[in-house]
Amino acid sequence: MTVSYAGEVPNGSSFGCFWKILWKWRGSVYKLVWRELVAYLCLYLTINVVYRFALTPSQQSIFLKVRTHFAQQMESIPMSFVLAFYVNLVVKRWWEQYRLLPWPDTLALFISAAIPNSSGGVNVSGSTLMRRTITNAALMQNETGRLMRRNIMRYMVLAYVITLQRISLRVKRRFPTTQHLVDAGLMHESEMKIFEAMNQKSPMSKYWMPLVWATNIINRARKDGLIASDHIVQTILVELSDIRRRLGGLIGYDTVCVPLVYTQVVTLVLYTYFVAALMGRQMLPDVLDSKGREDPDLYFPLFTILQFIFYVGWLKVAEVLINPFGEDDDDIELNWLIDRHIKAAYMIVDEMHEEHPELLRDQYWE
Amino acid sequence: MTVSYAGEVPNGSSFGCFWKILWKWRGSVYKLVWRELVAYLCLYLTINVVYRFALTPSQQSIFLKVRTHFAQQMESIPMSFVLAFYVNLVVKRWWEQYRLLPWPDTLALFISAAIPNSSGGVNVSGSTLMRRTITNAALMQNETGRLMRRNIMRYMVLAYVITLQRISLRVKRRFPTTQHLVDAGLMHESEMKIFEAMNQKSPMSKYWMPLVWATNIINRARKDGLIASDHIVQTILVELSDIRRRLGGLIGYDTVCVPLVYTQVVTLVLYTYFVAALMGRQMLPDVLDSKGREDPDLYFPLFTILQFIFYVGWLKVAEVLINPFGEDDDDIELNWLIDRHIKAAYMIVDEMHEEHPELLRDQYWE
Amino acid sequence: MTVSYAGEVPNGSSFGCFWKILWKWRGSVYKLVWRELVAYLCLYLTINVVYRFALTPSQQSIFLKVRTHFAQQMESIPMSFVLAFYVNLVVKRWWEQYRLLPWPDTLALFISAAIPNSSGGVNVSGSTLMRRTITNAALMQNETGRLMRRNIMRYMVLAYVITLQRISLRVKRRFPTTQHLVDAGLMHESEMKIFEAMNQKSPMSKYWMPLVWATNIINRARKDGLIASDHIVQTILVELSDIRRRLGGLIGYDTVCVPLVYTQVVTLVLYTYFVAALMGRQMLPDVLDSKGREDPDLYFPLFTILQFIFYVGWLKVAEVLINPFGEDDDDIELNWLIDRHIKAAYMIVDEMHEEHPELLRDQYWE
Amino acid sequence: MTVSYAGEVPNGSSFGCFWKILWKWRGSVYKLVWRELVAYLCLYLTINVVYRFALTPSQQSIFLKVRTHFAQQMESIPMSFVLAFYVNLVVKRWWEQYRLLPWPDTLALFISAAIPNSSGGVNVSGSTLMRRTITNAALMQNETGRLMRRNIMRYMVLAYVITLQRISLRVKRRFPTTQHLVDAGLMHESEMKIFEAMNQKSPMSKYWMPLVWATNIINRARKDGLIASDHIVQTILVELSDIRRRLGGLIGYDTVCVPLVYTQVVTLVLYTYFVAALMGRQMLPDVLDSKGREDPDLYFPLFTILQFIFYVGWLKVAEVLINPFGEDDDDIELNWLIDRHIKAAYMIVDEMHEEHPELLRDQYWE
Amino acid sequence: MTVSYAGEVPNGSSFGCFWKILWKWRGSVYKLVWRELVAYLCLYLTINVVYRFALTPSQQSIFLKVRTHFAQQMESIPMSFVLAFYVNLVVKRWWEQYRLLPWPDTLALFISAAIPNSSGGVNVSGSTLMRRTITNAALMQNETGRLMRRNIMRYMVLAYVITLQRISLRVKRRFPTTQHLVDAGLMHESEMKIFEAMNQKSPMSKYWMPLVWATNIINRARKDGLIASDHIVQTILVELSDIRRRLGGLIGYDTVCVPLVYTQVVTLVLYTYFVAALMGRQMLPDVLDSKGREDPDLYFPLFTILQFIFYVGWLKVAEVLINPFGEDDDDIELNWLIDRHIKAAYMIVDEMHEEHPELLRDQYWE
Repeated sequence: MTVSYAGEVPNGSSFGCFWKILWKWRGSVYKLVWRELVAYLCLYLTINVVYRFALTPSQQSIFLKVRTHFAQQMESIPMSFVLAFYVNLVVKRWWEQYRLLPWPDTLALFISAAIPNSSGGVNVSGSTLMRRTITNAALMQNETGRLMRRNIMRYMVLAYVITLQRISLRVKRRFPTTQHLVDAGLMHESEMKIFEAMNQKSPMSKYWMPLVWATNIINRARKDGLIASDHIVQTILVELSDIRRRLGGLIGYDTVCVPLVYTQVVTLVLYTYFVAALMGRQMLPDVLDSKGREDPDLYFPLFTILQFIFYVGWLKVAEVLINPFGEDDDDIELNWLIDRHIKAAYMIVDEMHEEHPELLRDQYWE
Repeated sequence: MTVSYAGEVPNGSSFGCFWKILWKWRGSVYKLVWRELVAYLCLYLTINVVYRFALTPSQQSIFLKVRTHFAQQMESIPMSFVLAFYVNLVVKRWWEQYRLLPWPDTLALFISAAIPNSSGGVNVSGSTLMRRTITNAALMQNETGRLMRRNIMRYMVLAYVITLQRISLRVKRRFPTTQHLVDAGLMHESEMKIFEAMNQKSPMSKYWMPLVWATNIINRARKDGLIASDHIVQTILVELSDIRRRLGGLIGYDTVCVPLVYTQVVTLVLYTYFVAALMGRQMLPDVLDSKGREDPDLYFPLFTILQFIFYVGWLKVAEVLINPFGEDDDDIELNWLIDRHIKAAYMIVDEMHEEHPELLRDQYWE
Repeated sequence: MTVSYAGEVPNGSSFGCFWKILWKWRGSVYKLVWRELVAYLCLYLTINVVYRFALTPSQQSIFLKVRTHFAQQMESIPMSFVLAFYVNLVVKRWWEQYRLLPWPDTLALFISAAIPNSSGGVNVSGSTLMRRTITNAALMQNETGRLMRRNIMRYMVLAYVITLQRISLRVKRRFPTTQHLVDAGLMHESEMKIFEAMNQKSPMSKYWMPLVWATNIINRARKDGLIASDHIVQTILVELSDIRRRLGGLIGYDTVCVPLVYTQVVTLVLYTYFVAALMGRQMLPDVLDSKGREDPDLYFPLFTILQFIFYVGWLKVAEVLINPFGEDDDDIELNWLIDRHIKAAYMIVDEMHEEHPELLRDQYWE
Repeated sequence: MTVSYAGEVPNGSSFGCFWKILWKWRGSVYKLVWRELVAYLCLYLTINVVYRFALTPSQQSIFLKVRTHFAQQMESIPMSFVLAFYVNLVVKRWWEQYRLLPWPDTLALFISAAIPNSSGGVNVSGSTLMRRTITNAALMQNETGRLMRRNIMRYMVLAYVITLQRISLRVKRRFPTTQHLVDAGLMHESEMKIFEAMNQKSPMSKYWMPLVWATNIINRARKDGLIASDHIVQTILVELSDIRRRLGGLIGYDTVCVPLVYTQVVTLVLYTYFVAALMGRQMLPDVLDSKGREDPDLYFPLFTILQFIFYVGWLKVAEVLINPFGEDDDDIELNWLIDRHIKAAYMIVDEMHEEHPELLRDQYWE
Repeated sequence: MTVSYAGEVPNGSSFGCFWKILWKWRGSVYKLVWRELVAYLCLYLTINVVYRFALTPSQQSIFLKVRTHFAQQMESIPMSFVLAFYVNLVVKRWWEQYRLLPWPDTLALFISAAIPNSSGGVNVSGSTLMRRTITNAALMQNETGRLMRRNIMRYMVLAYVITLQRISLRVKRRFPTTQHLVDAGLMHESEMKIFEAMNQKSPMSKYWMPLVWATNIINRARKDGLIASDHIVQTILVELSDIRRRLGGLIGYDTVCVPLVYTQVVTLVLYTYFVAALMGRQMLPDVLDSKGREDPDLYFPLFTILQFIFYVGWLKVAEVLINPFGEDDDDIELNWLIDRHIKAAYMIVDEMHEEHPELLRDQYWE
């Protein structure tokens, strides 16, 4: 699940507001960077030890020359710029992908408005006798209406899951095959058969099939008079096409990533810089810095480590967000969303359907 | 309440236009930074005093070495870039969140147009007799219409408040429980019961429930002939779904923050810089600067303080805006908005409803 | 009025294309900066003169030390970055505000299409006799239609003016009170009374009131058959709600400015830099520059002045645009727009209404 | 006409892909910069020659001092930043303006669907006898329909041209007066008279007048039954209002340019830099560079020229794009677009109208 | 086909997450840069060898002077900035172009909903006898419906292909002439004739013609009662116009590239930098660096090569993306998309049409 911390820093004006954020571990830069950092430090110290204890003075002298050269040249590596623009791009794409995820709530709202129960949905007053008379026909119609509402919402969630199955490792783990969708109650056996029949004709992703079925139910409901006007049909169709557009957009983001060249350039720049720093930033005894003064030997490369954390952490922002539907701490928890959508959709179109509050005067009525 | 100052600087061409802005205290950088600055200065001066009076000359010599090292290395900390892009991102998100806040005015406009009073809403001419005849039926219909209009608007505001309860500390303080909503007249007891019944089924946020109820009232009004055409029903449904989309979007911004790694990297970079400055920028006697010339001992680290104010102030922009619904001076005053929305909504759909001006010729009529 | 110069530089490929732009005075950087520059130069020269003629050699020596320190440290002030991002943000907001300003033309187009004159609006052929028969009823209906068209447009402009009254100094000067709106013919006395009655209930901005009245006229026109279909009613309602959204958006931009902290940080950074330059960039005799070579004494701080013009000019861009509805040369001339809107609106819905060209074959007809 | 070169570089992976682009002349940086560069070089060399042959040694010594001062100080001119952000802004505006240009195709599509020929438009099967019977009435209706379709499209193009006349030098050259529009067949004499009558009432731009006339034809067509449903009327009205919005937007971009201050600051920064370079970058004999080493006298200021080309070329991007409707090589060829629109519009609503293909089975039919 | 790698890096938190990306060859920076790099190295080494073995000492001395001059001056070439902003612009345009590509799915969804089979599309219960009676008329209508559905979709894909033919080298290769479209079954002979007839009148791109034909079929279907309501006609028309807008937009992106000046400036800056590096970064014996210390002669210009890879790789991002429809590894595989669209479109409107699942209770039904 995404790490939400906005609630913990409501007041930026308080003293040390962001401090508590620094101690978080889940999704933190420390958790992301520590493995790389340990590996890097081992390498660094190995070289250091080799220099001090294994090299002859003449080798040391050559080493020092190389060190000086590296120390100078590594400054010419254009890291900040390329990283800043690259991370910016990835963060933008990450957010757009999150915003593209469709929510079933709007469709459920429309469906709930379009196919009311024939008893009206609001508490009708009327003689019990009359109500009993209309029971048979109305009840059957209500039953059909309820079936339709639930099926349309199920199809919407099904399309959602089929899409995410393709682009998210998490959802793929939960539903590795179509059979798992049937087991989870998102698909009927008969639907799976149609699905497989179509799959044999062409193996492309068929996330839109449930949406076409939903359209068909809408059509039928209009024909049978369960939906009273063409306007609401139009509204629902437009909403369905919007859901399809969003799901297609998500697949588009997955298929067409940030160009590989860009990612490689940024990663190479970063790695090259720190490989050069392995030489150029070695803490060695009796070294002059680039301005000719003594470079103190503190044994521990404090600032190189800090730089490592900053820059690698910055790149990690991009590494984590380039696939927002993976299994990182910061990735979007799609399985939770799927469960939420099933429940919310059924609740709006079915469970809430009978219990609408009465029309009452409010407190400010004059 | 947000600090509005645009009205105070209408003319950028006047002399010293932004000066008056520098003296403001509410929401100012001084108010945000002074606590951190005082703490920082204490640390700085403690170190300074320790160096001057507590350290032996050999310790001082080591201290000076470390100081030189820090002074050099701290320049390699990439602060400006990462801060600039990060603050840019946070400011963008802050503004998008503000723009997402739905306003009830549009819905009220549509509702007011959809459910007119049966007497027409505009001053009708007609015999008093005839008007009296239609009184009974019309009055009852008018009463129902008024009930419906007010209830729909109440539901909209209720959905608004339920959403903000979740994401804003301020609104949470005002309405800690659902009972408080009932007390404030935003909810009826019967509605709270339905709410709680649904909450037992699933604990997810149910800000959309009042919107579903509103849909239901629309449906009923159309059935009873209070709304004359399907077009306006469609328009209102689309507006209701837009409100839902906005509220859902706000929750999305709250759930999925700027990735924690990014925030941590930026904060760490800043803090590391100033911790290094505690050593590297110490004003000490008889020190040579990085170019080998005498570094004057002014006792007071003027430029370090200025840098502190600039950079920490810049980060404070992000700290304040990362949660725009908190309690900072610059945060959006949601409680004021809620009150405004209740009043405006009722005014449009009810109080104004009877008092429409006559059709008169305007001044330029020829 | 905004300074439009795009028309003067149609061809960027011509020699010295932007030169003529440099000589403009209205809205120019010179006009904006000269007062600050003169003040700054006076300060600079005072200090210079004091150093040369008033200070003792030992004071001069201390002064030089401080000068050196300032000259070094002022380079650590991060001006470009923070200015670039800040100005970028302000320019973006300025343009969004300009684009938000609603234009009455679209509404007028719809109104003109919705409420035609009963004689059809296009030159009808028919016997004079028949035309005379329909005169009485039709004329009255035409009169009502004309009244309605003009009133709706007047209400739209009224909502526009009431909004701008709140956010623009210029419009506030022109219409200081509601009475001024009545005098200008934008409001009737009766409407002002309703307005004031509502103001007593709640003092919030009521720019939406005229739009509600306009809705009401639409409703009545549909009921009386002046508008022939529900589709056009829907279209007009959506347009009215779009106008309301834009006006509300303008108020939003006015209420929620760029956060004060951000503005203060940028302004402080700039001022600090140039205050430091007062010392650090003093042209003095016998001074060594930061690289140990002689720093020539040119008496006149040419480059400091240039820097002042550039940086302060850059900030002035933000100062002028942060309130785009003020009285700067570059601010949007709202009063001109209001006059234009009134004329254009009446022209479209009324004056043009009778004079539609006949259907003729065009030149390319085969 | 815009210089299109994307088709020449389809494959970025080929060797030296962008080389062929460097040799282009039309719209190239060379063509844009060479005049300025020649002028600059003349100045540069004049100074150089004066120094070598006209100055006395003591004058040379002063010159050298100034040269050193300039060489140091010119580095403090913040060119890259301000240029990068400014060019970014101008490019963004340029593209938005291009995207705002309305195309008549969509309107033509709608009109073509709305006003079909009464014979149906698709090849009807039926007895020749029956077809002959319906000839008279249908033919007349078809004639009216054709008239209407063509006139609406003509009005759209007319509005387009009237708008561009105002903002584009090229279009203004082609159509200097309204009479030229009549001569080109875009306007009838009678329409010009109405136009002028309205112009006398108020001199503002009246690009929306033809759109109002178009609305009127739509209204009449609906009344006469040539348009079968209100839905298509609504769709066309919305499209017409979109065209108006775009034309209004174009005028908005023309009226409210990038603030003059911004343009001036950027231009001044650039010019100042290169004026300073006239001194500070002089290639002179026996000069030490800023680090105290010999500065070789190559006679020819190669890198200064390169810098000139880069920076002035970069600014030229902005100079060319700030008015995208001028006469630069890279400006949009509006006259070509106007011709294209006239032809395309008439083709869709008229010439194509009779020739629709039959409904045939496709190749994959099973 | 675009290189998709998001699926390979689902978890940014894993150790060395981006390493596997560095080893990819297709679409990689190595594959893009190696030819240029080899050429560059040859040049570099040639110069190096010439210096060491062919030049006389006095020539070497001049060479060294030039080298020093170049080494200093090349740092003044503003590469990072201009590259960062340029690549940013190109990446943004690339993504917008990709997002503009229309997908037939939405249209197919609407068409499928608009023209159902007369047997209703969902499994009807009824006596076999009755079904047989309706066979004749219904079957014929079904046949027409199927024809219409398939033809509309074919026209949409045809418009898509005609557009891409113009802007994509890949699609042009596949369909060099209109005859190829006929052969591929996308066009009928009769349609080609109309096409050519229109082409003779005006040679402009006529990608919109199939869309007009599609509109015509819609009109006819509505007239013949195959489409039951005007709402769905409106929805389909709007969708068709959206497809046209997108195709027109793609042509717009192709016609109006990033201004040539901009591309030239960026390319020139880069090439100049590396041409200067040929001299200024030569590894030579006995050279002092710019700070007066010995510059070690490592024979192999490691860091110059790395810089070359970074910067040229960065520009390659732009070179590859400036024409996203070419034949690079990273370009969008339009031919695959075309095949997919044909299959998906026919599947939705035809093959799926008969096989809709029954309405069944779902697993959670209570």
